[in-house]
Amino acid sequence: MAKWSTPEPMKRALQLAQEAASAGEVPVGAVVVKDGKVVGEGHNLTRTHHDPTAHAEIVAIRAAAAALGDERLTGCDLYVTLEPCPMCAGAISHARIGRLYYGASDPKGGAVEHGARVFQQVQCLHRPEVYSGLGEGEAAELLRGFFAERR
Amino acid sequence: MAKWSTPEPMKRALQLAQEAASAGEVPVGAVVVKDGKVVGEGHNLTRTHHDPTAHAEIVAIRAAAAALGDERLTGCDLYVTLEPCPMCAGAISHARIGRLYYGASDPKGGAVEHGARVFQQVQCLHRPEVYSGLGEGEAAELLRGFFAERR
Repeated sequence: MAKWSTPEPMKRALQLAQEAASAGEVPVGAVVVKDGKVVGEGHNLTRTHHDPTAHAEIVAIRAAAAALGDERLTGCDLYVTLEPCPMCAGAISHARIGRLYYGASDPKGGAVEHGARVFQQVQCLHRPEVYSGLGEGEAAELLRGFFAERR
Repeated sequence: MAKWSTPEPMKRALQLAQEAASAGEVPVGAVVVKDGKVVGEGHNLTRTHHDPTAHAEIVAIRAAAAALGDERLTGCDLYVTLEPCPMCAGAISHARIGRLYYGASDPKGGAVEHGARVFQQVQCLHRPEVYSGLGEGEAAELLRGFFAERR
């Protein structure tokens, strides 16, 4: 069976996740892409910045919105190594992200296919197209390694 | 019947909501309190800052975490004029807010007693105590007035 290679933005997100781990942050990375170009990226920075909202997706979305000078990231796609939590899923909806690509599924904290299922609520005003599983092996391995070291 | 007066932090949150309206932002205000002192506050700034994550709660939580130098706001309470959305409810949980006081209920966008019901999910690692209805009349009136002007 043909194996699709991991898209470039997800490779970059995985690289950012690795940088997060090196900085002692939970290894999750995210990249916002518009017309094939990266317009915002980031990794978890909650410890470094003393900011409970500084998940990879929020960091990348804020950077992209600042760079584009627009609170709405219409026509932008988000690549993130882990299934977004309720906070990040909410931010993705507010930002009007067109397509969401995520790596590893997160039964413990995810809110796309688990728990709060933010995009499936009738109140959700904007739902991105969702694609999962891209680079999930590497994304999950980074997380396992990080938490195993800390046990 | 005795009528309880609105607590001081909620009065301040309502004042911040009024400031938001004057700045052309959706009138929601939030205040983080620790040991009876305000340690962070804010109002919606999504338009001004080109930041889709800049809801009142996020602004106040980020300010408080920066001021205290800690990503966890243990022992802090949050007062906000409107029921938090999924993004803000998620942030409240991540920040370990002890008590959440909110004014108006929000059937269209709220995620505490509506929709995603973030704190009621089994995955939710930290649930604040929740008190609603404080100053709700004034909070709702500010929102009604703001949107009526824009129709």
